[in-house]
Amino acid sequence: MQCHPIGVIHTQHHQATGTPIQPCRAVGVPGTAIIDEPYVEGLADLDGFDRIWLLFWCHQSSEPKMTVIPYRDTVPRGLFATRAPARPNPIGLSCVRLDRIQGNTLHLLDVDLLDNTPLLDIKPYVPQYDNYPVQHCGWVDHAPDPNPAADARFEKPHLD
Amino acid sequence: MQCHPIGVIHTQHHQATGTPIQPCRAVGVPGTAIIDEPYVEGLADLDGFDRIWLLFWCHQSSEPKMTVIPYRDTVPRGLFATRAPARPNPIGLSCVRLDRIQGNTLHLLDVDLLDNTPLLDIKPYVPQYDNYPVQHCGWVDHAPDPNPAADARFEKPHLD
Repeated sequence: MQCHPIGVIHTQHHQATGTPIQPCRAVGVPGTAIIDEPYVEGLADLDGFDRIWLLFWCHQSSEPKMTVIPYRDTVPRGLFATRAPARPNPIGLSCVRLDRIQGNTLHLLDVDLLDNTPLLDIKPYVPQYDNYPVQHCGWVDHAPDPNPAADARFEKPHLD
Repeated sequence: MQCHPIGVIHTQHHQATGTPIQPCRAVGVPGTAIIDEPYVEGLADLDGFDRIWLLFWCHQSSEPKMTVIPYRDTVPRGLFATRAPARPNPIGLSCVRLDRIQGNTLHLLDVDLLDNTPLLDIKPYVPQYDNYPVQHCGWVDHAPDPNPAADARFEKPHLD
């Protein structure tokens, strides 16, 4: 199960600290996805969708931790009950706005990703598949939500 | 970028043909996810969520194709404008209902996956992150939707 990038994402965020947590906290923040040549054909018909899923490799995240204190809480939680990037398979998922496509470049908005993030996949956002009403959202329903943006807690140590 | 399973999904679907297309067409269909021991600690706090994302490896899908005729249409579309499994990184994404957790076993509903699908990740479904109103949903808005379930078009050839 070997993954490889289909392109790269460029944004204004160069470190975790200060990067918005999720697209809903990055409203209007621009970014681009540059798609590698063998995959450009697969972008046909995508421009009709308002939003798209980006699946990406969390290239700056630390080793997996089964218990984490998520940004939105102050107490430890099971990793899989959070969206923290320190996962066994560090695959991130963000629903961003698709502004326009020019050749191999997707112009995006609401981008919560670090610059140079390897892109693994793009899927269209389809409300029938992705938009479910829910009654219970676990600890998130009552989270104190103390952080306006990310910090370095899940960042790979820098070797400089 | 090496992925490895954190567990395996079991369902009643043993081949693509007849498998529901997306959880919205699999309402009430049961399945289980058996989580490998090193990752069970990470399930803490997950039981409070009504729905969860499964990220999985499409282990039976054919080689990637940049142009496909998706199940819901009758004409070719760019791969990334579809949810077809024949992708460069064959990572699937399904929002299923979490019925209950017993030890290392997640009891699920609305399961649209093949039996023995390798599980890569679990994320909580959080409407604030995942539930966006959209005006335009590309070709899907006017798709003829001719297929009640999947067929073999994206299935790996069987060597028997």
